[in-house]
Amino acid sequence: MTSENSVGIVTPQRFRSEAPLTLKSGAVLPGFELVYETYGTLNAARSNAVLVCHALSGSHHVAGTYADNPNNLGWWDNLVGPGKPLDTQKFFVIGVNNLGGCYGSTGPLSTNPETGKRYGADFPLVTVEDWVAAQARLADALGIDTWAAVLGGSLGGMQALEWSLQFPDRIRHVVAIASAPKLSAQNIAFNEVARQAILSDPDFHGGHYAEHGVVPKRGLRLARMIGHITYLSDDQMDEKFGRRLRHDEHRFSYDVDFEVESYLRYQGDKFAGFFDANTYLATTKALDYFDPAFAYDGDLAGALARAKAEFFIASFSTDWRFSPARSREIVFALLKNRRRVAYAEIDCDAGHDSFLLDDAHYHAVLRAYLENIAV
Amino acid sequence: MTSENSVGIVTPQRFRSEAPLTLKSGAVLPGFELVYETYGTLNAARSNAVLVCHALSGSHHVAGTYADNPNNLGWWDNLVGPGKPLDTQKFFVIGVNNLGGCYGSTGPLSTNPETGKRYGADFPLVTVEDWVAAQARLADALGIDTWAAVLGGSLGGMQALEWSLQFPDRIRHVVAIASAPKLSAQNIAFNEVARQAILSDPDFHGGHYAEHGVVPKRGLRLARMIGHITYLSDDQMDEKFGRRLRHDEHRFSYDVDFEVESYLRYQGDKFAGFFDANTYLATTKALDYFDPAFAYDGDLAGALARAKAEFFIASFSTDWRFSPARSREIVFALLKNRRRVAYAEIDCDAGHDSFLLDDAHYHAVLRAYLENIAV
Repeated sequence: MTSENSVGIVTPQRFRSEAPLTLKSGAVLPGFELVYETYGTLNAARSNAVLVCHALSGSHHVAGTYADNPNNLGWWDNLVGPGKPLDTQKFFVIGVNNLGGCYGSTGPLSTNPETGKRYGADFPLVTVEDWVAAQARLADALGIDTWAAVLGGSLGGMQALEWSLQFPDRIRHVVAIASAPKLSAQNIAFNEVARQAILSDPDFHGGHYAEHGVVPKRGLRLARMIGHITYLSDDQMDEKFGRRLRHDEHRFSYDVDFEVESYLRYQGDKFAGFFDANTYLATTKALDYFDPAFAYDGDLAGALARAKAEFFIASFSTDWRFSPARSREIVFALLKNRRRVAYAEIDCDAGHDSFLLDDAHYHAVLRAYLENIAV
Repeated sequence: MTSENSVGIVTPQRFRSEAPLTLKSGAVLPGFELVYETYGTLNAARSNAVLVCHALSGSHHVAGTYADNPNNLGWWDNLVGPGKPLDTQKFFVIGVNNLGGCYGSTGPLSTNPETGKRYGADFPLVTVEDWVAAQARLADALGIDTWAAVLGGSLGGMQALEWSLQFPDRIRHVVAIASAPKLSAQNIAFNEVARQAILSDPDFHGGHYAEHGVVPKRGLRLARMIGHITYLSDDQMDEKFGRRLRHDEHRFSYDVDFEVESYLRYQGDKFAGFFDANTYLATTKALDYFDPAFAYDGDLAGALARAKAEFFIASFSTDWRFSPARSREIVFALLKNRRRVAYAEIDCDAGHDSFLLDDAHYHAVLRAYLENIAV
């Protein structure tokens, strides 16, 4: 359903890069395709382009709907559109499915040209750096020399940050929301349990489940359930579900007793029905590996010294996956480098998922920042 | 290995209750057995008995070692012994494996007298209330009319609390550490994911895995990995593991990259090798169900009004599973009832697991409280 200030019906497009891409792992992709969408119009000066990067389970479908599926609203539709905080009357906005994704870009679901079979587990692990390198080729093809801004939440924010490091002259503003400069041990631990759930599912078959005509749904389901716990705040879970029972009394069985159990099972089942397990595994590794300070003996300020962009960093008070303290690490490292940085710590009870919601205060500060970007 | 102030070599004992036990679920157990250990000596007045209740994966083996396995140290050996905070020169201490456990008490591993086969999934779900009812029969058999104290951490603390409600005249002191008056939605959510990991393991066979000659190790392993994340604090995980790599560089595979992954896999594998899946499942349900305020429309003070004991409540600053706020709920409800309650909020970086450690400040305040108990 499109609303008054929606970008309306959109159509995904496809970009093919014929040149081989050497990945951070050393593996080489012999060309690749990226699926993307655009909203708004590139101006004559080509100065109003904004890239929106997706997080773990997101896609290129950032805003609007599809003609053949009007209920499929883009994941950041509340933010992107005419008159919305990321205003498509001003900006030319691009959403792209990352390399290794499962929404149409080259990834584990694609055919391996060397074997004529689906890549599956043979698709090489890609990193945040690789995603940005692939996105840069799309920018080249679209004639976008410099992004007015690169925006993202969570893992998307890491890509925005990486843009400022890999291509300091091609990005004017980094907007990184609910993000972190690297995962903590606890973050990695949650990812590892999710991975083990998938890897140990008997239907995983070493990642070549397609050849066996199955999908490791049990593992994907558990992975998503674990994820969901970390996306919500403790307080919000209590508000949303508390100890509310599905039935009037305890069942003394392993059926659903509490509403929160029903919610998690539903989210897990839904996700396992459409998301690719190899993409999920690989994306958690991209998260784990991202650490621009690694080559600087852990000195984030040293790592960020080469960035030239201006920054908008935002975090949410109840986000315990990427807490405000993690965003402040980025802010402090930028200040050490005397970079221009705006920081908003937003009081919102929705935990990590807040970045996807249209909290009034959050959208107001983001709107204000984006309005001030010259195009 | 026994140290100077160890209770030394101990021998588990077995208590059999022939009378049927009606459980909270309505199911009836036709008699049952409990395995227990004792340390110290019951005094002539029978006034120095202390019950130690175990948490999710604990057992009756609280202190000391076994003659045939000198490395098997009791789980709270640092607390219980001659001259230790719970001094066995003063107290007669009892550890008991709860009903439904897998360390020798009647439970899913026992033979169902009605079928002559192992109970497995047919063992009825037991609650904290049922555990306390069974413990009371053991107390009767030992001639213990009144406990000087009932002690426990986490789920063990819930049992101590329940003693004061079910048998207000049979307990003089409740010592509940790192506990909560009920689980939060997030607590239940973590339990539910652990349960789903086990229930969806193809080797679970509806809980009758023994008949199939298998064990749902994959599920148990995941359940334990999830648990371990919640037992440690974020800070402690960062101190203990940080982003330390197992090898010098990223492996670009799903082998172990980070030490924290290795730790979790090890803990999961170890646990899956000895713990019973049906006991694990049932124990998480006992945790979920415990909620003394449920029958009082959520009014905890109303629920605790019938308690007559004195209370010592302790929590740990970095425990995010059962945070200090959860302990304070108990304290406030007791104060509303004008009950005597001492509360210690201990600054310790080890998260929920702090209750098992011998943090000097923690042990000092606990010692002081226990020293003041008249026997």
